[in-house]
Amino acid sequence: MALPGAQGHNAAMDDTPAPSALKTPAQRLAALRAEVAERGLAGFIVPLADEHQNEWVPAHAQRLAWLTGFTGSAGFAVVLAGSAAIFVDGRYTLQSREQVDETLYTIRHMTDEPAADWIAANLGGGTLGYDPWLATPGEVARYKAACEKAGGSLVPCPDNPLDAVWADRPARPAAPMVPHDLAFAGEPAAEKRGRLGATLATDGIDAAVLTAPDSIAWLLNVRGGDLEFTPVALAFAILRADASAELFVDSGKTTPALIAHLGNAVSIAPTESFAPALDALGADDAKVTVDPASAAAFVFERLEAAGASPVRRADPCALPKACKNDTELAGIRSAHVRDGVALTNFLGWLNEVAADGALDEWGAAEHLEGLRRRGEHFQRLSFPTIAGAGLHGAIVHYRVTEESNRRLQPGELFLVDSGAQYLDGTTDVTRTVAIGAPGEEERERFTRVLKGHIALATCRFPKETTGSQLDVLARHALWQAGLDYDHGTGHGVGTYLNVHEGPQRISKIPNRAALRPGMIVSNEPGYYKEGAYGIRIENLVAVREADAPEGADRPLYEFETLTLAPIDRTLIDTTLLNEAECGWIDRYHERVRETLTPLVEAATATWLAGATTPVGEGEVRS
Amino acid sequence: MALPGAQGHNAAMDDTPAPSALKTPAQRLAALRAEVAERGLAGFIVPLADEHQNEWVPAHAQRLAWLTGFTGSAGFAVVLAGSAAIFVDGRYTLQSREQVDETLYTIRHMTDEPAADWIAANLGGGTLGYDPWLATPGEVARYKAACEKAGGSLVPCPDNPLDAVWADRPARPAAPMVPHDLAFAGEPAAEKRGRLGATLATDGIDAAVLTAPDSIAWLLNVRGGDLEFTPVALAFAILRADASAELFVDSGKTTPALIAHLGNAVSIAPTESFAPALDALGADDAKVTVDPASAAAFVFERLEAAGASPVRRADPCALPKACKNDTELAGIRSAHVRDGVALTNFLGWLNEVAADGALDEWGAAEHLEGLRRRGEHFQRLSFPTIAGAGLHGAIVHYRVTEESNRRLQPGELFLVDSGAQYLDGTTDVTRTVAIGAPGEEERERFTRVLKGHIALATCRFPKETTGSQLDVLARHALWQAGLDYDHGTGHGVGTYLNVHEGPQRISKIPNRAALRPGMIVSNEPGYYKEGAYGIRIENLVAVREADAPEGADRPLYEFETLTLAPIDRTLIDTTLLNEAECGWIDRYHERVRETLTPLVEAATATWLAGATTPVGEGEVRS
Repeated sequence: MALPGAQGHNAAMDDTPAPSALKTPAQRLAALRAEVAERGLAGFIVPLADEHQNEWVPAHAQRLAWLTGFTGSAGFAVVLAGSAAIFVDGRYTLQSREQVDETLYTIRHMTDEPAADWIAANLGGGTLGYDPWLATPGEVARYKAACEKAGGSLVPCPDNPLDAVWADRPARPAAPMVPHDLAFAGEPAAEKRGRLGATLATDGIDAAVLTAPDSIAWLLNVRGGDLEFTPVALAFAILRADASAELFVDSGKTTPALIAHLGNAVSIAPTESFAPALDALGADDAKVTVDPASAAAFVFERLEAAGASPVRRADPCALPKACKNDTELAGIRSAHVRDGVALTNFLGWLNEVAADGALDEWGAAEHLEGLRRRGEHFQRLSFPTIAGAGLHGAIVHYRVTEESNRRLQPGELFLVDSGAQYLDGTTDVTRTVAIGAPGEEERERFTRVLKGHIALATCRFPKETTGSQLDVLARHALWQAGLDYDHGTGHGVGTYLNVHEGPQRISKIPNRAALRPGMIVSNEPGYYKEGAYGIRIENLVAVREADAPEGADRPLYEFETLTLAPIDRTLIDTTLLNEAECGWIDRYHERVRETLTPLVEAATATWLAGATTPVGEGEVRS
Repeated sequence: MALPGAQGHNAAMDDTPAPSALKTPAQRLAALRAEVAERGLAGFIVPLADEHQNEWVPAHAQRLAWLTGFTGSAGFAVVLAGSAAIFVDGRYTLQSREQVDETLYTIRHMTDEPAADWIAANLGGGTLGYDPWLATPGEVARYKAACEKAGGSLVPCPDNPLDAVWADRPARPAAPMVPHDLAFAGEPAAEKRGRLGATLATDGIDAAVLTAPDSIAWLLNVRGGDLEFTPVALAFAILRADASAELFVDSGKTTPALIAHLGNAVSIAPTESFAPALDALGADDAKVTVDPASAAAFVFERLEAAGASPVRRADPCALPKACKNDTELAGIRSAHVRDGVALTNFLGWLNEVAADGALDEWGAAEHLEGLRRRGEHFQRLSFPTIAGAGLHGAIVHYRVTEESNRRLQPGELFLVDSGAQYLDGTTDVTRTVAIGAPGEEERERFTRVLKGHIALATCRFPKETTGSQLDVLARHALWQAGLDYDHGTGHGVGTYLNVHEGPQRISKIPNRAALRPGMIVSNEPGYYKEGAYGIRIENLVAVREADAPEGADRPLYEFETLTLAPIDRTLIDTTLLNEAECGWIDRYHERVRETLTPLVEAATATWLAGATTPVGEGEVRS
């Protein structure tokens, strides 16, 4: 899958809202304005965020959608007494015009027309409120600068005025928190707490505040069901240097089995106790780390108010979580075989049924999900499937709706970016296939994307190399033809956790996190021609130590490709490939065929034999 | 040439010092201690820096060498009453042991054993002095943190106590400042002042303080002779939003011709007037920009003391100076032809004389300099020549001395990294040649370095691409064999100015300066085997717009290779090259041959014909 945040998703929209007195955006805006005025504020900021800065915002935190109707995956509104604006990025210019009532809101481009300018022009000397649970300290600093530029001021409102008027606000998710089996996790939670606690002690730190649900899930070997695509429970935690921890979670989510699993060194308290626990840390004058990239400003403000000076430092779970252990890697490989079976059965089926033009995007995505559900340990999808036919393939964050649903038509490309959450691993794979005979331009561009994919897949690199350093390898073949893609090349992936995780990243944007053995990252160059077609080839890869070449004077790392599914040979123009590139495809296809043939349906196996023929041996058109 | 700062150089050591009462390091240290104590300080920091943060520190600012005897290109000392330490980097561990009296100074590794720790352990509660002219604000912040950690404090001493005891301190350089002809500069200084002043005005800035001599030289179309390798005059300047400027320079350096050249909009004042001018800016409450990366802390402290709040912003000349105009580019191309003639005559001569084993590094470097001096517009070398035979080639910052001088021996490699300052351009080129028949390992590694050089030379890339993004292209072929080089791949180069300039850079280290048309950058991958040999292949290249390939959907940039000199064919293992790589070498050699043959000596022309034969056509061993 492409860029984190590039998929449109709005959990609130998936459920029919309960009846409410406030039915229209105009009514909702008026009610919010009245509440804001009641509190003596000149205005209020409504971001699209929850208390954990989750990528997929749960229904109870879909305030921007409730207020404005806008359901894109990024944006925020600023509501003043006499004016209101919504800020969206370039991906959502059209969608926001369709969804937002422009008599109520001015629609502005987030980066080209910065909110600071709008606030400066409209706030006057007033006081703008924000919910400190829904913003990072960096965001608060930017809001503050904008208010000061306007001659006004910014004040925190931990008691969100919008929530006061949102009568039919969905309840917080209440799925149980469950133990994650050691057979999948590979390292007992007590050991994880022990080694992270020891590092805190060495650094003279008393405690680390954890606000990222996936960090808590990893640290305590637990999972949950509070988010549609990510198996986490919404929770907070404090890890102490003595390896003990406090877990703050809604009371209904804990079970005796969970309590037994967590053990005596982990105390459990209701979510409401988190803020008082921060006060206690402050009162103890404790040295506490908090991650400014992911923790809410609330945490910093509360610790500071209690007298503590929080140390701004990366979440201590982020790096160890990213470096998968051998058990996790074995699970991930196994999950990829099952995922490869499902996707390959799908591709074989697609080859049979797509040519007649009756299949549509929705039907294809449903069929694929059904095939995945058959796999052992399948729990849910890992993100909303992107199934883009023809010109929809060029919309990087495309998600099929009833209105947009398009039939697959001969002569067009079909891009499917999908993945699943298995107990033993998280998958994310993109294949682009030709429906019928592809055009020469599509083949040429597909092959350039493939060259980039192979360059990254086969690269060996020394220790301390970052993903930013490698990014160009995936783009070089496109660049030479004056082409590129406007998203990152690779994101970290969790194991039965977030499909997007840090700290590593393969991107043009500088990133200082070195690639380390056990890290999973996607390899997903693409090419998009607006209004015509989209191409993306995505496999997940794991960083591992490479065998030292003779004469090497420094150790090397390399990527192990995890994803198993054929790459459409009909889209490969072998005249653009060198021998080594052809060799990589043939070896990859051989591995796919040998691994999956015994596991897929008989008809798929037959099709797979042809689909994985060496690329040198004559062009096979489907 | 490799990394900025990677060359050992010490102008003070080139001249016999005048007689002094303080002859030994012990006497000098004692005198400094007495002076420091007299001023009520617990200690003093002695960096290797001048008032302009020049890369090549002039003799009058060689305080570290005078005090400690250490002549490396980077380092600093901290002198306390009862102890003293000198901090050097890994390149200078051995050299510092040879030069520094360890009964007087503890030698510490700059990064592995941070000065902050030593200061914290030794300063106690005392007051440490520093010269605010010799440190950037960032350096001062680090010193300050270290002192505070020690329970002490840091105070500025603009009246340097070391200077008070350095009786025979060399005079400040006094070469005249001279006009730089419009025929070379391509843009009248008044126009440069006009367009930079307009940008200041647009940004609401009143003035920019300029402390970098090369920025002043570029802006005013002047040059000087105050530094051995860089044709600048030591000076400060203030550029105003109305396009006027004040130039602060030692009075003896100005001539009537210069004054006429500068014109009425540029007022000239003695260097001593610079600080009062900062006071005046503060008193006017002016909005002033200063570059924190290159300006002395003195400038910030003085402006702040006068009531101004300096805006920390990149030197406004840096980017326009880096993007050469058409006149400059024409001059640079022309200078490279002359430089190529000199280097090619040298390589041909070397091929004749080196085989008998009588020639040494010194003799080779002298001969090459002599050939360069014949070229039109030659002014001086652009940096100390690196002429490293055999194992000396592996010392990235090697500079031949009487003691180190080594003969060129058959079977060894010889690395020559050299360049010159011509009125119309600055050159910097490295060639590595085999003396006699090279070993297979050397050929294999040379070819991998060459592959990296070619990958960068032939790369096309979109707008907004940075050098950091391209760096891996130069390393990829080495990485695949478990090899690498521990220096940057490319640095910016001025035109008849600094051989190392920013803001662009091709490096593993993230750099956000996009490559733009007209920027000059070196392309210099290498490989070094300690104690055995060194390889580096360096050409200068200019960024230019590329012709759009058919079907391109975004504009591309590419590199134009400027340097003209043959690459040793006997070191190329063509079995490691693909057709495109062989094609690049042959086309490059053809261009070298066609351009230089009419201009080189007759014997060189004959040799060049063979040395530039297509690499496919049989191996030619010298």
